Amino acid sequence: MTASGGQDSDTGRLETFSDGVFAIAITLLIIEIAVPHTEGTESLFDELVQAWPSYFGYAISFLVIGTVWANHHNRFRLISRSDHILLFLNIVFLMCVAFIPFPTALLADYIRDEQYRVTAVAVYSGTLAVTAVFFTLLWFYAAGNYRLVDRAVDPLLLRAMTRRYVFGMLLYILALIFVLPEPEVSRGARRTRRGSVRR
Amino acid sequence: MTASGGQDSDTGRLETFSDGVFAIAITLLIIEIAVPHTEGTESLFDELVQAWPSYFGYAISFLVIGTVWANHHNRFRLISRSDHILLFLNIVFLMCVAFIPFPTALLADYIRDEQYRVTAVAVYSGTLAVTAVFFTLLWFYAAGNYRLVDRAVDPLLLRAMTRRYVFGMLLYILALIFVLPEPEVSRGARRTRRGSVRR
Amino acid sequence: MTASGGQDSDTGRLETFSDGVFAIAITLLIIEIAVPHTEGTESLFDELVQAWPSYFGYAISFLVIGTVWANHHNRFRLISRSDHILLFLNIVFLMCVAFIPFPTALLADYIRDEQYRVTAVAVYSGTLAVTAVFFTLLWFYAAGNYRLVDRAVDPLLLRAMTRRYVFGMLLYILALIFVLPEPEVSRGARRTRRGSVRR
Amino acid sequence: MTASGGQDSDTGRLETFSDGVFAIAITLLIIEIAVPHTEGTESLFDELVQAWPSYFGYAISFLVIGTVWANHHNRFRLISRSDHILLFLNIVFLMCVAFIPFPTALLADYIRDEQYRVTAVAVYSGTLAVTAVFFTLLWFYAAGNYRLVDRAVDPLLLRAMTRRYVFGMLLYILALIFVLPEPEVSRGARRTRRGSVRR
Repeated sequence: MTASGGQDSDTGRLETFSDGVFAIAITLLIIEIAVPHTEGTESLFDELVQAWPSYFGYAISFLVIGTVWANHHNRFRLISRSDHILLFLNIVFLMCVAFIPFPTALLADYIRDEQYRVTAVAVYSGTLAVTAVFFTLLWFYAAGNYRLVDRAVDPLLLRAMTRRYVFGMLLYILALIFVLPEPEVSRGARRTRRGSVRR
Repeated sequence: MTASGGQDSDTGRLETFSDGVFAIAITLLIIEIAVPHTEGTESLFDELVQAWPSYFGYAISFLVIGTVWANHHNRFRLISRSDHILLFLNIVFLMCVAFIPFPTALLADYIRDEQYRVTAVAVYSGTLAVTAVFFTLLWFYAAGNYRLVDRAVDPLLLRAMTRRYVFGMLLYILALIFVLPEPEVSRGARRTRRGSVRR
Repeated sequence: MTASGGQDSDTGRLETFSDGVFAIAITLLIIEIAVPHTEGTESLFDELVQAWPSYFGYAISFLVIGTVWANHHNRFRLISRSDHILLFLNIVFLMCVAFIPFPTALLADYIRDEQYRVTAVAVYSGTLAVTAVFFTLLWFYAAGNYRLVDRAVDPLLLRAMTRRYVFGMLLYILALIFVLPEPEVSRGARRTRRGSVRR
Repeated sequence: MTASGGQDSDTGRLETFSDGVFAIAITLLIIEIAVPHTEGTESLFDELVQAWPSYFGYAISFLVIGTVWANHHNRFRLISRSDHILLFLNIVFLMCVAFIPFPTALLADYIRDEQYRVTAVAVYSGTLAVTAVFFTLLWFYAAGNYRLVDRAVDPLLLRAMTRRYVFGMLLYILALIFVLPEPEVSRGARRTRRGSVRR
């Protein structure tokens, strides 16, 4: 009946570890926001306003990771056992979650740049789509044939959750396809991006 | 009765996740303090003393986040259930907490600078005020009509806590208003800030 | 019977602390991937593709740390007591795990560089080999004579695990020896590495 | 009897939070070690060897924080209740622990530099001394008159622990005094430090 060994808390340390990764990934988002440098004649307030894509990226990714965490949390209330494959799928899934700060910084840096915006948005959407795919795979594996789920769980609930995850995954992939068509044409074009604050 | 599924520990993983974010946000404060570079003729000791705003910001924000954590901790001893709205309010609240390292770095960088100090202090106070607002909203939602609080909790205690949070929130907002009036006038003025150490 | 004091959860806080270090080390890997700078005429997509060693290093080290975590997790399901020596061995072991982001960044930076690749790979393999050595030492100490393992554990299982760890350790050391022979000859040779993205 | 509300696990969330700060502070040490840049004619292996103060600082501080964590862990096995003052003392104590990465980086940067070494060592020792002082204060407060310690705890054990902490604190302070006398004289002297690797 200890937290680390009992039968019924078989997924306990898996959840603790996952929560740690979620909490760190979500909190690390802040280190992508750099303190602006005022160069002589500018207003600090203006500089801070200019950095809006950083706050925007921070807020969006914080909500995204928070939502993914909440879903992970709900799912693992139903998953009562773990095995090697679940561990592996969960690690790959966490690898996607912990990756999110990178496309977030990319998005914040290039969202104002007509030439590169599409690439940045595509990388961001792509990361979320891949995350959703592994989320869905993990759920399929655990819930299929009640493999790692308690027999007492209502099959209708299971099916409803599966449907929801598949739908969410398709939505992310559609979003990705939607942003992809517009090609990055102007390879040789001049950069028009305003010199943004970089560390 | 496991830590991750039982009825009476419904908020367990929410608290664990929140504690993770608090612990990371508070510890990340240190990475804003850069090792000074001694350029030829200066004393390392003098350089370290010159960097006092960094230590000041570190100490203030550490105490602020620590206090907010302690309050969160106390509140969740009374909140015994969670739902989607609580999860959402908690995520937005954590978004404010995890944001604190940024205005801290801003404050440390500009507190010695007459021209920009006001803006930096306003952003710092503003972040704390917004954090307090979401803290209060979260509490209102959970404690209102005993929505997520155990019926056994003394109504006088609940009302006392509510009063305390509202008061704290108002205090932060007042502090913000207090620092705001002094406008940042000298847009075109020369920078007088001593070249501080930046990474 | 509390999580922090009971006889049977003697290793609880040790595991929580270790999980924290694992979760942070694995999530910190992302901060080694820098947002590329597009210098005028280049395509952001090309720049992102050029940075493949960073993603490669991230993925490899994420899987490595995840695997090490899973092994640590399995082992501590059998270890039911702790003492000063176990604490010390565990700290030194965690020191190796938390070090992994450094050789990962080294590998990502120099894998495309014929001259320095060998050194980078050797440092990376060496870190994993040393980690495996301490992992094995820790297990030897805990499992030898059932020192910190429950008497109820099947001796065949213990011996199988010991064999597995020793085998894993030898594999890492062999891998290290395999990459070492090729010497770093060209001390004075020109660098051929493509200017990679560095923070 | 839940982890977050029961009488006997009153210090549970305090310990979890502290463990988080310990785990993050100890793991953040790695980000102070920068990947060396090979400038044309140098050997990567030589560059890595040159960076030994970074590895030295990492190892020392990892062991220091690990030891402090183990002591905190042992102490809180005896402390069974918490109050506002304990919370406050613990936050200030954690503030010292989370500060350690900064003097570590300072030490690694200046240990080879005759002129500045003393200052760096003094700041490092000073941080440890202050940490030990707050550690001792916290213990005095909790253990004095069995304020927050279970009545069942052997008074001889309590006194032994107190003696040990006071002794450790004095040792750190003595170490500090020992390194302090040598004054940092040569303000105007040329820097002799080898250009170390800085991010």
